[in-house]
Amino acid sequence: MKKIGIVMGSDSDLKIAEKAIETLQELGVPFEVHIYSAHRTPAEASEFAKNARENGFGAIIAFAGKAAHLAGALAANTCLPVIGVPVKSSTLDGIDALLSTVQMPSGIPVATVAIDGAVNAALLSVQMLAIEDKDAAERLQAKRDRDAQKVLEKDAALSAKYL
Amino acid sequence: MKKIGIVMGSDSDLKIAEKAIETLQELGVPFEVHIYSAHRTPAEASEFAKNARENGFGAIIAFAGKAAHLAGALAANTCLPVIGVPVKSSTLDGIDALLSTVQMPSGIPVATVAIDGAVNAALLSVQMLAIEDKDAAERLQAKRDRDAQKVLEKDAALSAKYL
Amino acid sequence: MKKIGIVMGSDSDLKIAEKAIETLQELGVPFEVHIYSAHRTPAEASEFAKNARENGFGAIIAFAGKAAHLAGALAANTCLPVIGVPVKSSTLDGIDALLSTVQMPSGIPVATVAIDGAVNAALLSVQMLAIEDKDAAERLQAKRDRDAQKVLEKDAALSAKYL
Amino acid sequence: MKKIGIVMGSDSDLKIAEKAIETLQELGVPFEVHIYSAHRTPAEASEFAKNARENGFGAIIAFAGKAAHLAGALAANTCLPVIGVPVKSSTLDGIDALLSTVQMPSGIPVATVAIDGAVNAALLSVQMLAIEDKDAAERLQAKRDRDAQKVLEKDAALSAKYL
Amino acid sequence: MKKIGIVMGSDSDLKIAEKAIETLQELGVPFEVHIYSAHRTPAEASEFAKNARENGFGAIIAFAGKAAHLAGALAANTCLPVIGVPVKSSTLDGIDALLSTVQMPSGIPVATVAIDGAVNAALLSVQMLAIEDKDAAERLQAKRDRDAQKVLEKDAALSAKYL
Amino acid sequence: MKKIGIVMGSDSDLKIAEKAIETLQELGVPFEVHIYSAHRTPAEASEFAKNARENGFGAIIAFAGKAAHLAGALAANTCLPVIGVPVKSSTLDGIDALLSTVQMPSGIPVATVAIDGAVNAALLSVQMLAIEDKDAAERLQAKRDRDAQKVLEKDAALSAKYL
Amino acid sequence: MKKIGIVMGSDSDLKIAEKAIETLQELGVPFEVHIYSAHRTPAEASEFAKNARENGFGAIIAFAGKAAHLAGALAANTCLPVIGVPVKSSTLDGIDALLSTVQMPSGIPVATVAIDGAVNAALLSVQMLAIEDKDAAERLQAKRDRDAQKVLEKDAALSAKYL
Amino acid sequence: MKKIGIVMGSDSDLKIAEKAIETLQELGVPFEVHIYSAHRTPAEASEFAKNARENGFGAIIAFAGKAAHLAGALAANTCLPVIGVPVKSSTLDGIDALLSTVQMPSGIPVATVAIDGAVNAALLSVQMLAIEDKDAAERLQAKRDRDAQKVLEKDAALSAKYL
Repeated sequence: MKKIGIVMGSDSDLKIAEKAIETLQELGVPFEVHIYSAHRTPAEASEFAKNARENGFGAIIAFAGKAAHLAGALAANTCLPVIGVPVKSSTLDGIDALLSTVQMPSGIPVATVAIDGAVNAALLSVQMLAIEDKDAAERLQAKRDRDAQKVLEKDAALSAKYL
Repeated sequence: MKKIGIVMGSDSDLKIAEKAIETLQELGVPFEVHIYSAHRTPAEASEFAKNARENGFGAIIAFAGKAAHLAGALAANTCLPVIGVPVKSSTLDGIDALLSTVQMPSGIPVATVAIDGAVNAALLSVQMLAIEDKDAAERLQAKRDRDAQKVLEKDAALSAKYL
Repeated sequence: MKKIGIVMGSDSDLKIAEKAIETLQELGVPFEVHIYSAHRTPAEASEFAKNARENGFGAIIAFAGKAAHLAGALAANTCLPVIGVPVKSSTLDGIDALLSTVQMPSGIPVATVAIDGAVNAALLSVQMLAIEDKDAAERLQAKRDRDAQKVLEKDAALSAKYL
Repeated sequence: MKKIGIVMGSDSDLKIAEKAIETLQELGVPFEVHIYSAHRTPAEASEFAKNARENGFGAIIAFAGKAAHLAGALAANTCLPVIGVPVKSSTLDGIDALLSTVQMPSGIPVATVAIDGAVNAALLSVQMLAIEDKDAAERLQAKRDRDAQKVLEKDAALSAKYL
Repeated sequence: MKKIGIVMGSDSDLKIAEKAIETLQELGVPFEVHIYSAHRTPAEASEFAKNARENGFGAIIAFAGKAAHLAGALAANTCLPVIGVPVKSSTLDGIDALLSTVQMPSGIPVATVAIDGAVNAALLSVQMLAIEDKDAAERLQAKRDRDAQKVLEKDAALSAKYL
Repeated sequence: MKKIGIVMGSDSDLKIAEKAIETLQELGVPFEVHIYSAHRTPAEASEFAKNARENGFGAIIAFAGKAAHLAGALAANTCLPVIGVPVKSSTLDGIDALLSTVQMPSGIPVATVAIDGAVNAALLSVQMLAIEDKDAAERLQAKRDRDAQKVLEKDAALSAKYL
Repeated sequence: MKKIGIVMGSDSDLKIAEKAIETLQELGVPFEVHIYSAHRTPAEASEFAKNARENGFGAIIAFAGKAAHLAGALAANTCLPVIGVPVKSSTLDGIDALLSTVQMPSGIPVATVAIDGAVNAALLSVQMLAIEDKDAAERLQAKRDRDAQKVLEKDAALSAKYL
Repeated sequence: MKKIGIVMGSDSDLKIAEKAIETLQELGVPFEVHIYSAHRTPAEASEFAKNARENGFGAIIAFAGKAAHLAGALAANTCLPVIGVPVKSSTLDGIDALLSTVQMPSGIPVATVAIDGAVNAALLSVQMLAIEDKDAAERLQAKRDRDAQKVLEKDAALSAKYL
């Protein structure tokens, strides 16, 4: 199975990124974790992306805040799908990171998820691997069924309370 | 090769969606095109998503404007990756569609691209197929190399003009 | 008297939704409470809406945050009036939920109230029932008169303080 | 059948409001049309709202732009449901009118629809009347079925084109 | 000397409004304080404004949050200058109140100050009275000179610290 | 009667400012018009403000776009009331000018009107003069009555059309 | 004299960038013009920045729209000052480019000017060179004096018209 | 070596400005610190800017919040480069200060950095001095290398943890 690359622009993003790590662990998908800044270590970020396919990665998840260029900088150096997670920082509630991540120019896509949307980034990366991997697809569907079941159990309890 | 499903919420989205169609044609990737509204034809939209994997689709691209629920409504009914393209409408410059598409709750990701970002949606869908498809990966890389070459030719012309 | 359906997308919305419940209780209007997610349990949400009229509901109130599709997903499956309450979440201060709820396409309205506006959602639902129900209309007017009286008493106290 | 009151703050709103008028005409619902400004003719606006129930109105639709106070000013003077349509003006793309209409304080709801959402305002007003009016409910459902049919016909044509 | 009318839409605005009261007290300008809601007590709000000039008021300051209609509702009923203070509430950081206050239609101005800008509202009201009142003008200038002096003293201390 | 000073930051603001000029002419209020830029001619702008009171001005209206500092720069140099009109420019729809004008720090108020709100700026300036000028107050009220009458005539025509 | 590097992300930025070119020509400052995309030609963009100081550049101006990463990508590869010009594109009025350019993380500054602010970018670059270059400083001051003179001449004409 | 002028509009900006001071101290660059308000002490602010070049300053950093005019007011009085730091205040998360600082009219640039971006303002000021100062350029590069090294060390630790 291909690996997922998890890259964050700063160790301050780790608190959010950990939810992606836990989701990949829950789904049994291999991954690597790195801190590469698009601005402070641009060469290392580029190198990681350029070699990702041959190093066994199937997709990359990038976490960054503010003028969040990391996902775009990685995407510029690989044709693997790159998933961008805009991270909320101390001002502007993440809208800066969202626009910096999603509004990519034609030719270089970044698959953007919600602000701080680490779980969905992990799920999306596994959905990509699962296009051709029935086992992964089944694990995704099983997780989704469990999530739905939890909602229905909460509904049963709450609706009974107000009958 | 898996097909890409192109779904738009209204035929008014076609002008934007056509750029995705052209990109898939350029890359030689099979696709189907549909108009299903999350609100006016919710059953048909759900059915399409539920059956997409067994009908040979590898990923789905959804185009919608305003309170753009289509991508999310499809994603709720499949574990295939769903790419959302927020479409600019007559007010708010597309920010309503962007937020409605990208801010998905935990558990159901939508891979969001830029407002009106049809070309990138198509490229992203092929990147997903190309994770396990070397030929598709090579075609993507070739297109990217051509795009880069065009930039460099324009640079050569412009920089010479001002020497 | 017709019932009001209160549906929330997640049990995290309950803290806000409880204010709607209390308002309906204060006005003596029957209701049911449910947790159905437009994304995690789309079939149950659709079914609830499809059967709402014949199950004795007169209007539905939907609570959801982020890419708040719940009100729209219910409205797509019933011609009963659906009231949407955008719920503030951890980022963007509720503007994502507001735009996702209010900017519905032509054909499928959602009656949107303020962000976290649970009391007003309940009042609005009773106003709808009260179009043809004099007793309900009188209870609404009596509550409004009490609210006005409270303002005037506060005014009397405050204005006297600064004479 | 109760009448719908259509009130606009300025005759410049008429171009948008006409779509609500046409929708009510299509559905055979009686209505009256007025121009009352919350700011230029506040007394007339208040009087209209205060007397609306006894004058046979079931709901009121208010159109206003910029600091759109009209819907709120009407709602302050009646317990009938008031539907607010924020109208886009020459700056800010209607976001000023949207927030001025929807962010009502607790106690006085306004049922807000999309910016320039005149058709949905009309449909919502009929949905309210149809809570207790089977014939109106059937006309709404029939219109919705026709709308859905149009989408499906467009889908058939478009999907065939790309087969 | 004419009085300043201080009106707030809710007693929750008092914490902000108190800074205006203190500023008027500091400048020795007479005032009255009231709580009148544009929505919960529209008649009382209108009456206050209609009678303000003959009751000896020279200007009115209105405090309101969310869909802040109070300043506009007062301005609709008097030709005295009305100063609007948008008050920050639990969502949207006051931008809703700002736009609802400032974006008034042609014909009915509201003199809007910053979000939560109570001190400036008071100063502005005294500036208006001081157009024809030399004594008030001198007190304003004296306060401004004191404020400037405080800045210069802080500058002297801080710049010395880093010499 | 005191004069109104009309100052614009650039001759590109003249098209908007002319509506203020016409309103003052209609109301018979004396005025002067100037172009002074807070940034290109800061000394002239300051001098104008410093001498405004002794030169017979009662209030100043400032028109500026983008980082609209003109109103604040004038207000910093006089205790006369300064009215700020944010002018829409080629980007951002005037929100930059609005925030730059209205969000003044404590101590130096600017009475801000709507984006491009030239008529209201003129009316507000006359309201200020009219606090102590019965004749001006009557002219304002007469204009307001005429405006109201126009609305009522339009209402009569439109409501009759749909009877 | 050091050269100014003008880099744009796409030839669609040329229309805006030309105003910077003309300003540098007017001030007699040498420059080079290039098209390098942070995403389509990341290696060339990096190389340009890495070698800029030794190639005789004193500062770099970068033009880019949407998720405008170009200025940041150049700044990541040089310690020369990099000036970012956010360019307005077909959606969002340039706010995406502004936030992507200005909200840089600690360690890697970009000197950001207004959306489409090409003239100011050129002036700022010359201001930087002029810190140690008296002749350039004098040319800047002379241009500023000419600009001020133009404002004063327009003021004289306009104010005379309304005397 | 030229000095850097650090000016803040209020002592409440000091907490942010201190990070700029520390950065200049770390890089061994001389500076002065002042509190001058564009609104409360406009004459002192202008004087500082007018004399800055002859007083040995090479660049000025201005800190201000809300309608942040300080950077622009300084820039209007000098041709030295002025760096603006928008400071977040109690409402609007700093977007008011950002737009008031960056959207300067043509002719008077302000080099704007991120909201609360004090470190980058200091770095940018040194980059300007370093255009002609090899020693300063080397210190900047050395600091950047240290910053990069820290990222790589954190990457090594984190990536090892998840191997």
